Amino acid sequence: MTWQQLAADKKKAQLDGVPKEWLLDEANLPTQNDVSSFPQSSALLSALDLEITQSSITVLLENLASAKWSSLQVTTSFLKRAMLAQQLTNCLTEIFVDRALARAKELDEHLKRTGSVVGPLHGLPVSLKDQMAIKGVDNTIGYIAWIGKPAAENGAIVDILEELGAVLYVKTNVPQTLVWLETFNHIFGRALNPHNRTLTTGGSSGGEGALIALHGSPLGVGSDIAGSIRLPAAFCGTYGFRPSYHRIPTRGGAGSLKGQDSVSSVVGPLSNSLDGLTIFVKAVLSKRPWLKDPLIIRKSWDEDGYNLVEHGGPNAKLCYAILWDDGFVRPDPTVHRGLEITKKALEAAGHEVIDWKPLKHAQLGLTTAKIFAAGSEEDVAAVAALSGEPIIGSMDPEADIWQKRKLMGGPLSAYQLWQLQKTKRELREEYLDHWTQTVKETSTGRPVDAIISPVAPYVAPPHGKSWNLFYAIWCNTLDYPSVVVPVGAKVDPVLDAKQPRTEFHSDLDKQNYDRYDPALYENAPLSIQVVARTMEDEALLAMTKIVDDALRAAAR
Amino acid sequence: MTWQQLAADKKKAQLDGVPKEWLLDEANLPTQNDVSSFPQSSALLSALDLEITQSSITVLLENLASAKWSSLQVTTSFLKRAMLAQQLTNCLTEIFVDRALARAKELDEHLKRTGSVVGPLHGLPVSLKDQMAIKGVDNTIGYIAWIGKPAAENGAIVDILEELGAVLYVKTNVPQTLVWLETFNHIFGRALNPHNRTLTTGGSSGGEGALIALHGSPLGVGSDIAGSIRLPAAFCGTYGFRPSYHRIPTRGGAGSLKGQDSVSSVVGPLSNSLDGLTIFVKAVLSKRPWLKDPLIIRKSWDEDGYNLVEHGGPNAKLCYAILWDDGFVRPDPTVHRGLEITKKALEAAGHEVIDWKPLKHAQLGLTTAKIFAAGSEEDVAAVAALSGEPIIGSMDPEADIWQKRKLMGGPLSAYQLWQLQKTKRELREEYLDHWTQTVKETSTGRPVDAIISPVAPYVAPPHGKSWNLFYAIWCNTLDYPSVVVPVGAKVDPVLDAKQPRTEFHSDLDKQNYDRYDPALYENAPLSIQVVARTMEDEALLAMTKIVDDALRAAAR
Repeated sequence: MTWQQLAADKKKAQLDGVPKEWLLDEANLPTQNDVSSFPQSSALLSALDLEITQSSITVLLENLASAKWSSLQVTTSFLKRAMLAQQLTNCLTEIFVDRALARAKELDEHLKRTGSVVGPLHGLPVSLKDQMAIKGVDNTIGYIAWIGKPAAENGAIVDILEELGAVLYVKTNVPQTLVWLETFNHIFGRALNPHNRTLTTGGSSGGEGALIALHGSPLGVGSDIAGSIRLPAAFCGTYGFRPSYHRIPTRGGAGSLKGQDSVSSVVGPLSNSLDGLTIFVKAVLSKRPWLKDPLIIRKSWDEDGYNLVEHGGPNAKLCYAILWDDGFVRPDPTVHRGLEITKKALEAAGHEVIDWKPLKHAQLGLTTAKIFAAGSEEDVAAVAALSGEPIIGSMDPEADIWQKRKLMGGPLSAYQLWQLQKTKRELREEYLDHWTQTVKETSTGRPVDAIISPVAPYVAPPHGKSWNLFYAIWCNTLDYPSVVVPVGAKVDPVLDAKQPRTEFHSDLDKQNYDRYDPALYENAPLSIQVVARTMEDEALLAMTKIVDDALRAAAR
Repeated sequence: MTWQQLAADKKKAQLDGVPKEWLLDEANLPTQNDVSSFPQSSALLSALDLEITQSSITVLLENLASAKWSSLQVTTSFLKRAMLAQQLTNCLTEIFVDRALARAKELDEHLKRTGSVVGPLHGLPVSLKDQMAIKGVDNTIGYIAWIGKPAAENGAIVDILEELGAVLYVKTNVPQTLVWLETFNHIFGRALNPHNRTLTTGGSSGGEGALIALHGSPLGVGSDIAGSIRLPAAFCGTYGFRPSYHRIPTRGGAGSLKGQDSVSSVVGPLSNSLDGLTIFVKAVLSKRPWLKDPLIIRKSWDEDGYNLVEHGGPNAKLCYAILWDDGFVRPDPTVHRGLEITKKALEAAGHEVIDWKPLKHAQLGLTTAKIFAAGSEEDVAAVAALSGEPIIGSMDPEADIWQKRKLMGGPLSAYQLWQLQKTKRELREEYLDHWTQTVKETSTGRPVDAIISPVAPYVAPPHGKSWNLFYAIWCNTLDYPSVVVPVGAKVDPVLDAKQPRTEFHSDLDKQNYDRYDPALYENAPLSIQVVARTMEDEALLAMTKIVDDALRAAAR
């Protein structure tokens, strides 16, 4: 069988296990670009389905734990809404309705029988990026060669989620190889941004971004090696968390660049609230994941960290610093406005906001991109060769997708790779000192508490135009945990009008400027990310809550 | 100037700053092999010098803090004894008498003026392996090219030691490149084992091993990527600790294989008591080293860990497991007897002792050795080329030292390196599961608490014969913290007689057996290492104290 045939057969079988009454006829599917509120008006969802899927994760968990809502009901509601999301944005890969409903029933029976929940996520449907390994389910990450090769074992995060009481029900779309800032592959096709389907969801956790934005999942699990959680969260207007290296287990998942031990891919959550992220991290750490994955640091949830003990305590005035421009590519007016809104909100809430001076951001990105490129061509070629499928070279629907893939760098010897990794370490040292020295610029007596940064120099761009990883990858290079927060606004053609500009940091800066037109980004949400120092994950979640509360208060 | 000339000039200047009255005339130097107790009878040391240098670290710190002994006095005593150690075993590289005495005086004045100590190591002389960077002092690690290129800044561990109140006074001998299991280079020559100078000190922290064994230092700092702290500690009969990755800062030190990010070199202490190791770790962590080195995990000293909270509490019956034989090279009768003594001592102290089943130890060692070899030839060649010195190819005094260096593996591409690192990760996963499953074999309801292992299949071997890294490197591959403890016995020609044996695990096993003769290892100390799971550093120190106390009690 040709690889094209294999891919087509797999795609055709995707909805096989889904009850027909959960699916819209082609003719009834909307044609407009913005489908973000389509589910609310769809006859497929009952009032209860809508109430459940629009509920906050806290309410969901309470109502599941009190048996006000059964897990069967909650799972069914999210399954139905996820099918709608799939029909609208093509955000899913594997769908396992029967297995999910059977698991939900088991959990309901357990609660009835014992009076107690299995764990803190009892009965909650949780969606997973395609790479996560579920025993008996494919994890192709868009590789045709991996069709029909279901995982032999659960990955560590899957085992833990099940111990916590979660119900797994769908896996979500990714780019072929995972290593792209958009979401497209030759098995499942392209994921679309629900706010404007001419725009990308970002990648590689793009399916999660779209699914969660459409409330087809209350909590999703993605991964991030260069922005793969944060770009989809930002482009789709959801929350997303890139934890520090080695807090959340990655063992057993599929992926590219396996064995690349220098800039680690991390697993983290996406959700429609910051609470969703915090609940996930706390729950996973409660299961002592270092006993399941040897790379995980033996460190429990740090309540002192969350209480900001090293930041003056929970009610202290904090000093945030804003990265307005990384000195390589200046963010668009849309992105700048998102930062402005955040600054005003934080100042209104009584916090100090200063400017962050970027240090070698282009080098931070290029060094890591070259580390990836040192072996990635051979890595993806080895898998592609198994099926004969070509490697996708462009995500642009109007370009030749089989063109040779462009990498920032090329194959290297181990010794050459070590020289890049040595440079990377020196950059981390310089950046740590740089951060420490900000104590001279704050009024708090402490260095800057957290940085507010763009996630990209643009909001969700059209398909094929997501290329800039520099505003995301510096956090991967430096291992700075970071949380994406939607600002609560969307692109505005008047407020975000193009401004005259004649001097540019770089050719890429000029290209980005020349491309800019707010009409191109119609309806895209504005987002920022909050960034803390390595392993300050708990403090970061607390400092992000302050940002999030300030933004919500300012919007009122 | 030729490289030979540069090396000779550097060596000639080594004792330039040392008062003549601290040095023995050549004619008065001993000629016997065992010089371990020579200092006690040397007229160079006063009764007070002897009292100070034979004191435990706890007594030293108490008497320094109470000003019973000035730091000037203590530093002088250790300097004098270190000079004797140097003349006996060639264990030093850089010696900075004036600087050390000036610093000691400063600390004495501080204590007099303020009534309080600078930190928990106030006034204590601390020796450093040559690679540690002290501003203004060479750190050649035996490379002629690096002569006369003093460090521009202190390394992070040096800054921290000074903040803690330590007095730095000497650096200690290492092999050229650091990557050898013995200690010899063309600047400073060969370090000799004080128990029998025909034997090696081990390497690469061999100078530390000899210096501490001779009580020329109360606390030394080494580093370990494949046994470099533990082999010298074991061969010289001192205590030594290999912490988990990224607890103790390494920033700023000289070294080989920089940028090799997969199997990390760690910094750790050597001392004449377990207390010395614990005091070092606790003191360094108190300075929040993650604010100085971005690779350091944000994790304070874990008092719960030290109280064995996850091992049944401080007074619980523990289960130790003994690794008698790794299935690749069987330990000599000497090493076996060390394990037997430990087993009896632990059982007498009321603990359970079972057998440890090794899992793929040859592969654990070979995989890491090949990771090192992937780029190390280019790495060392690049530095050697700067001076024209050849790379040492053998540490055997009777062999051609300029022969091509033998590596287990060879240069690789980045992609090939990643495949090894992927294998290494899988081995770590298997070993974690293997350990977890020992819960079925213990009577404690927990998996094995700690493993007791040889450090090498032999005790200190003759110069040029230290080749086996397999009993040390498995802890580096798996990132298991490990502490070397002297058993309290030495080689005994009768008790350690050669046993008949006809079946062998491997050619290396047979070679090691054929070589064995207790006379070859005359007077070498017996040692074991205690091994815990990743990041259980604090618990390991507590579990090692139980082993150490049991051994001391058994010896009474």
